Amino acid sequence: MRQSLLARRTLSPSTPLRAALLPLAFALSLALSGTVAAQPVDGPTGLDTDDLRTAETLRDAALRGSPAFDIVDELTTTIGPRLAGTEADHRGVAWAEAKMKALGFDTVWCEPVSFPYWLRGHESGAIVGAHAQPLEVTTLGGSVGTNGAPLEAEVVAFPDLAALQAVPDGSLEGKIAFVAYRMGRARDGSGYGPAVGARSGGASIAARKGASALLIRSIGTSSKRFAHTGQMRYAEDAPKIPAAALSSPDADQISRLIARGETVRVRLDLAAVTAGIGQSWNVIGDITGRETPEEFVVIGGHLDSWDQGTGALDDGAGVAITMAAGAAIAALPEAPRRSVRVIAWAAEENGLLGAREHAKQVGANWPRYQIAAESDFGAGRIYALRSSTSPEAKPVIDAIGRVLAPLGIATEHGIGGPGPDVGPLVMLGVPWAQLAQDGTDYFDYHHTPDDTLDKIDPKALDQQVAAYAAFAYLAAETSVDLGEAQKPATPPAADPRREGAAR
Amino acid sequence: MRQSLLARRTLSPSTPLRAALLPLAFALSLALSGTVAAQPVDGPTGLDTDDLRTAETLRDAALRGSPAFDIVDELTTTIGPRLAGTEADHRGVAWAEAKMKALGFDTVWCEPVSFPYWLRGHESGAIVGAHAQPLEVTTLGGSVGTNGAPLEAEVVAFPDLAALQAVPDGSLEGKIAFVAYRMGRARDGSGYGPAVGARSGGASIAARKGASALLIRSIGTSSKRFAHTGQMRYAEDAPKIPAAALSSPDADQISRLIARGETVRVRLDLAAVTAGIGQSWNVIGDITGRETPEEFVVIGGHLDSWDQGTGALDDGAGVAITMAAGAAIAALPEAPRRSVRVIAWAAEENGLLGAREHAKQVGANWPRYQIAAESDFGAGRIYALRSSTSPEAKPVIDAIGRVLAPLGIATEHGIGGPGPDVGPLVMLGVPWAQLAQDGTDYFDYHHTPDDTLDKIDPKALDQQVAAYAAFAYLAAETSVDLGEAQKPATPPAADPRREGAAR
Repeated sequence: MRQSLLARRTLSPSTPLRAALLPLAFALSLALSGTVAAQPVDGPTGLDTDDLRTAETLRDAALRGSPAFDIVDELTTTIGPRLAGTEADHRGVAWAEAKMKALGFDTVWCEPVSFPYWLRGHESGAIVGAHAQPLEVTTLGGSVGTNGAPLEAEVVAFPDLAALQAVPDGSLEGKIAFVAYRMGRARDGSGYGPAVGARSGGASIAARKGASALLIRSIGTSSKRFAHTGQMRYAEDAPKIPAAALSSPDADQISRLIARGETVRVRLDLAAVTAGIGQSWNVIGDITGRETPEEFVVIGGHLDSWDQGTGALDDGAGVAITMAAGAAIAALPEAPRRSVRVIAWAAEENGLLGAREHAKQVGANWPRYQIAAESDFGAGRIYALRSSTSPEAKPVIDAIGRVLAPLGIATEHGIGGPGPDVGPLVMLGVPWAQLAQDGTDYFDYHHTPDDTLDKIDPKALDQQVAAYAAFAYLAAETSVDLGEAQKPATPPAADPRREGAAR
Repeated sequence: MRQSLLARRTLSPSTPLRAALLPLAFALSLALSGTVAAQPVDGPTGLDTDDLRTAETLRDAALRGSPAFDIVDELTTTIGPRLAGTEADHRGVAWAEAKMKALGFDTVWCEPVSFPYWLRGHESGAIVGAHAQPLEVTTLGGSVGTNGAPLEAEVVAFPDLAALQAVPDGSLEGKIAFVAYRMGRARDGSGYGPAVGARSGGASIAARKGASALLIRSIGTSSKRFAHTGQMRYAEDAPKIPAAALSSPDADQISRLIARGETVRVRLDLAAVTAGIGQSWNVIGDITGRETPEEFVVIGGHLDSWDQGTGALDDGAGVAITMAAGAAIAALPEAPRRSVRVIAWAAEENGLLGAREHAKQVGANWPRYQIAAESDFGAGRIYALRSSTSPEAKPVIDAIGRVLAPLGIATEHGIGGPGPDVGPLVMLGVPWAQLAQDGTDYFDYHHTPDDTLDKIDPKALDQQVAAYAAFAYLAAETSVDLGEAQKPATPPAADPRREGAAR
């Protein structure tokens, strides 16, 4: 193992030596695994026909029926919402640990993480005056409250964040800035990137303009009357003002009143507070690898959720899919070459806090991570396998893709990005895979009270378990080292999937 | 007029004399209206080709574009929710009066009505204990609250109201009764009748069993996380206990926990109160008839709404459709024979309180009402014209139906029922028409915060204005007296449309 790590660190992707070494690695691994009768099928995939047959068996069995829906049912029904650091989150951690053990994982452990503990508390909003009416409003994660008393001010509307950015500093003194941008719908969630900046960074921009609060049209695609929450951040150099999202119908109501020439005054009463330090745990279950148990293929979802829905789509589904995939591999007569590690990540919604802690712990040992993937984009079927590895590993990905193809999954090179909790590992160099889900309706439910179990199609979950099980098995089984992730053309933060499609 | 009333009172539907008199009435009316050149087209319809052409012109003009969407936009945007008796309801009354005047109605007046003034106040619910999580819950209209402090008890679930009814009196002491019945979806809303009994009368049944509160699965067809409110009533002989609805996902969550063998304890904190006497007004706009202005064709919708949504579908749409239809008739060069009366009914949600008051005021003068129709089933297109008149008037209805047919509207005899606010007039004898709307998705939104403007298709509104304008014009123009409504085969309360499809 030590050797292989060293080899990996010293071989750059362009070094021809590495490719040259691969056939040797095959021969060695085949000899060690006792499957010498079978032969590699397609050049340097590091996989033989037995491996592919095992993956197909995993795939087809999951497609016939997996425990994934039962897992997400149990999680969301018996625990409910799981805001990081709350008593419910802690119940969720205990549940995940017990569940992985029951599912036959070899080792299950909890990795602690602590973070600023944010609580929503009471929240309400209303138009006051001649057009008085209640508003459906929700505080953004991490926001301050209204300081113990309602805040009341006139609303000034902006079509988007750039328009707010463009007004002079100090020009919104005593006003509530309102960003009315409408997020677009897309299968890959690509409408999220252009929209989410108003949520994540809008408050500090508004504060510099003098505003006393920020309201945004929800970052979502539904016209249902749910306000979408989500994490925001304050810049160091701006006053901290309360930030909240209006449901789309409420945002449009205010826009119509303003378009009628009316002055709109809004009262906000938000009791949100950051109350000391919260504690949670990444729950980690390993299926011990047959040959190099200290090398890992990582799959997972995040265990925490926002506090209003039961986090079925975000991300009970991801936890359930990857736990079920892991359980299927654990039930094989023989474990794959490397270990398969399923991580139920902690405190993702608050800013990938469990993932950051884990990457910190992994540190220089990152080459032990063969590849990492996270399911955190709802419960829609997977339509594409995307990845970033050393170029030499492309045949491995293509071989995995051929096993996934009957599930309606295309193999796509050169696009996509990893799930959010995989991001900190990728920054170290860990290769990533994205099993891209159909997210056409994901942002109808995302971060709303309506993210509940009934929104999940059990058959779609099974398709995803089939894909994750086959993928994780083959990535753990191949004798080929997947190398390291390629540097993205654009910084990760500019990728909507990285920016927090799942946050 | 006096004579025609007398004739109407003394002629039973089976008296052949009445039919015999009709041709004479035609001749007279034609002579008086100055349209002697045109001839009746199809027996005793009391309508000539000019009349039909005028109705077709009204129909086609509305189809090209009516002010209905703008009207419901203005109502729901500038006023918002309009719970009967509230300040917003009073703003709504002032708006309706001004709007009818602006739309060219000849006479606009307000008819007062007073009623028990119910307010929702704060409401919250949660599962407590090992599976602690918040619940989406809403108090039913008219319910008492939890007496100033949270009420906490174990939940006992029943599949339907009959199952609750079947347990012995006193057997639910200290428990919360929960009726988990699922309403079915249907174009005509026929799933509502079998479901709504749990809402309207369940509390007193539960109270007799000893329960301390009633919870119901929302009377609705959506899996969205909205609790559906609606009016309930207490029996005289049972203790008054709080009654509330759970959103469908929350109801199913409790059902799943119970199915897992868990004990479910719920805490309810409901501040609802009946606070003295509320006041509102039916807003009535008349287009004065050319010949018998003291006879009326009545159309309308109800102006009040529940307090959570903006009452766009229920029933801003109905108000807008019938105001726009009235405005189109008011803009004709010549008014129809009888007056057209548009009524924006008060306090419908609380129990047809404006309608009951109006019927009381009309009393023995009911034969002045040629026919009455209410639009109160959302904003879906009209697919059928149904009615109840004296049998001799069938050719008139069929003639109207032929004008409506190009709108995709079938004429159906012997089925249906009137809109809720028409009910008290029908009890007196007034004929009714039902311009039946497609309500397939009506109960997805009904009585929830999600009943907002964006749920309305402006083109569907125009189709309805076309139908109402042509219908009201022809019913007001025909020289045939429509007689009186036939006694229904079943009592009105058993008809789901009457029981309150729109309440």
